[in-house]
Amino acid sequence: MRSTAQRITVSSILAGALVLGAAGAYASGTDLTGHGDARRLSGDQTSAVKAEVKGGKAKNVILLIGDGMGDSEITIARNYAYGAAGRLPGIDAMPMTGQYTTYSLDPSNGKPDYVTDSAASGSGWATGTKTYNGAISVDVDGVAQKSILEIAKANGLRTGDVSTAELQDATPAVLVSHVTSRSCYSPTSTAAKCPTNALENGGAGSITEQLLDARPDVTLGGGAASFADTARAGQWKGKTLAAQATARGFQVVDDAAGLDAVTRADQTKPVLGLFTAGNMPTVWQGPAATRTGGTEPAVTCTENPAHTSEVPTLEAMTTKAIDLLDAPGAKKGFFLQVEGASIDKQDHAANPCAQIGETVDFDHAVSTALEFAKADGNTLVVVTADHGHSSQIVYPNSTTPGLTRTLTTVDGQPMTIAYGTADEGGSQDHTGTQVRVAGYGPGAANVVGLTDQTDLFFTMRDALRLDDSLDLPGAPEIRNVSVSDGAVLSGRKKIVVTLDASPKYTYIELNKAGVWKTDNTKAPGSTNAGSKPTLVIDTRDYPNGTYGLKIDAVGIDGRTTEKTISFEIRNR
Amino acid sequence: MRSTAQRITVSSILAGALVLGAAGAYASGTDLTGHGDARRLSGDQTSAVKAEVKGGKAKNVILLIGDGMGDSEITIARNYAYGAAGRLPGIDAMPMTGQYTTYSLDPSNGKPDYVTDSAASGSGWATGTKTYNGAISVDVDGVAQKSILEIAKANGLRTGDVSTAELQDATPAVLVSHVTSRSCYSPTSTAAKCPTNALENGGAGSITEQLLDARPDVTLGGGAASFADTARAGQWKGKTLAAQATARGFQVVDDAAGLDAVTRADQTKPVLGLFTAGNMPTVWQGPAATRTGGTEPAVTCTENPAHTSEVPTLEAMTTKAIDLLDAPGAKKGFFLQVEGASIDKQDHAANPCAQIGETVDFDHAVSTALEFAKADGNTLVVVTADHGHSSQIVYPNSTTPGLTRTLTTVDGQPMTIAYGTADEGGSQDHTGTQVRVAGYGPGAANVVGLTDQTDLFFTMRDALRLDDSLDLPGAPEIRNVSVSDGAVLSGRKKIVVTLDASPKYTYIELNKAGVWKTDNTKAPGSTNAGSKPTLVIDTRDYPNGTYGLKIDAVGIDGRTTEKTISFEIRNR
Repeated sequence: MRSTAQRITVSSILAGALVLGAAGAYASGTDLTGHGDARRLSGDQTSAVKAEVKGGKAKNVILLIGDGMGDSEITIARNYAYGAAGRLPGIDAMPMTGQYTTYSLDPSNGKPDYVTDSAASGSGWATGTKTYNGAISVDVDGVAQKSILEIAKANGLRTGDVSTAELQDATPAVLVSHVTSRSCYSPTSTAAKCPTNALENGGAGSITEQLLDARPDVTLGGGAASFADTARAGQWKGKTLAAQATARGFQVVDDAAGLDAVTRADQTKPVLGLFTAGNMPTVWQGPAATRTGGTEPAVTCTENPAHTSEVPTLEAMTTKAIDLLDAPGAKKGFFLQVEGASIDKQDHAANPCAQIGETVDFDHAVSTALEFAKADGNTLVVVTADHGHSSQIVYPNSTTPGLTRTLTTVDGQPMTIAYGTADEGGSQDHTGTQVRVAGYGPGAANVVGLTDQTDLFFTMRDALRLDDSLDLPGAPEIRNVSVSDGAVLSGRKKIVVTLDASPKYTYIELNKAGVWKTDNTKAPGSTNAGSKPTLVIDTRDYPNGTYGLKIDAVGIDGRTTEKTISFEIRNR
Repeated sequence: MRSTAQRITVSSILAGALVLGAAGAYASGTDLTGHGDARRLSGDQTSAVKAEVKGGKAKNVILLIGDGMGDSEITIARNYAYGAAGRLPGIDAMPMTGQYTTYSLDPSNGKPDYVTDSAASGSGWATGTKTYNGAISVDVDGVAQKSILEIAKANGLRTGDVSTAELQDATPAVLVSHVTSRSCYSPTSTAAKCPTNALENGGAGSITEQLLDARPDVTLGGGAASFADTARAGQWKGKTLAAQATARGFQVVDDAAGLDAVTRADQTKPVLGLFTAGNMPTVWQGPAATRTGGTEPAVTCTENPAHTSEVPTLEAMTTKAIDLLDAPGAKKGFFLQVEGASIDKQDHAANPCAQIGETVDFDHAVSTALEFAKADGNTLVVVTADHGHSSQIVYPNSTTPGLTRTLTTVDGQPMTIAYGTADEGGSQDHTGTQVRVAGYGPGAANVVGLTDQTDLFFTMRDALRLDDSLDLPGAPEIRNVSVSDGAVLSGRKKIVVTLDASPKYTYIELNKAGVWKTDNTKAPGSTNAGSKPTLVIDTRDYPNGTYGLKIDAVGIDGRTTEKTISFEIRNR
């Protein structure tokens, strides 16, 4: 406990000068050497914990996934940016905590595969079904499993899907699509790698096409490149997926200013933010780990110039998504998933600074969600990872058989990070450890203790009181037409089409030999709106003969169902 | 979901034939492929969690430390012995869960050192004070910090200290000793490496000597070798520490049968189990990881023949310790620490089978503690690790730049364990990750969320309502003698000695020129018992002259305080 004053001074100077992200409740340099100095609790927290165990229904769920963010990755980011005795303002403020298992299944025998990828793990919480590595919300037999986003939407909730990755990457994809291989981003790759899913083979299409069908109210991330590919079948065959998005009413934005300018996001005008061609750039950068990095002079992290002001941070995307999805007076709430994707990607790349910067940005997103939930009082927030990863904190200034890098943290101390699962030039790999899962709000106690990744699906479903038997609306269904094929009509006639629901509008066209004659907007009593669009015609206005009736029911999402009926006009 | 029946059959056969420790609630081979099949929760657990958040006073605390048992080590053991979907019967049954930070301090500046050793981390929960790697319950300045065991004992609780390591190893040592370096096991090493602690230099002695002074009611583990060393100063100078233990009333046992035969353990007859010269052997064995091990044929673990029936398991030691310490009717309870030491040691050795076996044995000890606590209703159980370690689960049948080994688990599937912090021949190292901390019983909610290792000291202290200002009794203190030095006595005389407390007995000897004359058991009115031992003499029985009075107050732990007084007998 001697020389405390001196330590504080030196440490504070170092902290200010060298390290990014150094703000936090803990004042780096605070003396830690005395009895009780390093305590995080100020006394018994039994009552405080009890108060956080809340049952009841949640109006909203915000699920935040730090991809590859195991306990080691969390500790690394805390140490660097806030100090070992500091706190990550978001992650460390989550009151309910536990661990969950992340294993996937071996598709050859349905038994455990001890190291999951992001596809199988995401499918786990998205659908409640364990599956194989590479699967996007299909089971081990390739059968589509409804996602929590789809179920939430079918139950009338607003939905959002936000990531710093390509939107076709596993974690955002599991909410909106069902393909047998995670690489089936667009029609071309789907034809090659997921033939049963290809639209031209009667499947639901590529991840990107299914994303457009799932139509969350808010979808923000990277991955614009896949939208340049062209549909191979279906209503938009031959058109790019970008053109399809616009045709189907998406508000497509491509930079931070564009996102800022958006003021609404709903099924009429959903928001699709495509900020980069591929994955979004990291917020921080620094030298990767190398075989000798641990013993080289310690480095500090810097901002990544590629992350320009045109690219929103995860925190900014999260704030905007919540703003757009929250409708305080509405009876139904929202489901939002937010992924910090490049914690994983930079762990693969053995780049500690980039990995830490992504963790810190992710943590800001958690803070944003937690602040909203605290103010709202009716929101379940869950923060977790999809799997563990390679990075480990080893003795300072040491090397290992793998790759290492030593950083100077906000404490002014050396921290050496080791990546031991691949050599230089290779990709560091996922690990099979159980990972932290933390919660706040109604139902959050279901993260306490040991759970499995698939439990999270049920925790969210049940907190929101969702009926998972409900399906997302597809294209409009034409259930009945009051004129049957082959009918003979005369005089004034009211033709009523019965649909399953109210589409955007229904076009009822009378034609003869392919030539347009009238539609249902013209005559009094006709209407193209609602679930019973009607065409009133006086058949005596047309010569006797064979006519066609072409009905196009156009859904709010642009999907159109067409039916043609042939009949005869025969007036005396 | 197809071919489930076949999978169950094959898996069950494999499980039974190949793998140790395969019993558990989860039936390995259960189909995991359907929706919800892998759930661990059966429904909302909000009420169940709330019911486990218990305030109030704990009568007993059982702290179980899996040395080096990070989340990865827990997952490895579960996967191997119970399957990925299985449960460790003890560890996974703990209802309150959280994470804590484990960093130590750099002694050069008092700032964080991101990778702790077992000495600094153990000192953290034992004393509530952060310290440097190697420190045994002293602060960064080398000043002794009271341990939770010492405080519990000073408050009248019974105490126990159990480990599979040498009892001088860091984790058991932090409860009973205070030395500047963890290697100061016995007088010889202490003279060389902890000179300020050496008895001959006025210190409190080596770890072993301080263990004998601290005198827990139950101390069980390895480390007999250090007891062969000889005291260099003090009351037992020139005697071995083993002889000292016997002289001081310890019941020393050296095998499982001896331990079984013990029926009481208290301050009069504390139990000292020394089952091996060094660390206790592991329960399982198997091939260590090597540079190519991951791609070699998968192995299974076998029992270690060196762990004979003469050596108790950690489970057996824990069961016995609880039996001996529990006194159902007593007003005061007990504090017991149990360490599974060789999870860490076998992680250092890159030996997955031995590491797993130790984790499974540790888990059995946790089950034992939890069963006791549930029956007792008044016991806080905490299960945690002191730090993370190297072992990681990597993609099956792969290698890494470090060492790997592939095992066949109870699931019948390959699991590859990687050790990446040292090369062949080296020692794998600790890591700096936050680790799991779990609790049951009164005060257990203080493990929820993010805490620090030092918080655990306060959690235990406060649950037991301990007054940490109380000190352990040292040697008896002679506060007053009714005859002062140089006094002149005549006639019949009552000499009263006033002590601070009642020792085992007090010997009051009258002598002349070194020749024994009488003691306090002889004359009527004399007594050698209690806090006021008395010698009644008729000085007229002795010729006039100069006499000495030698007072030896012998504590219950054998520590003796001697005082001599010179006076004159002068009768007419």
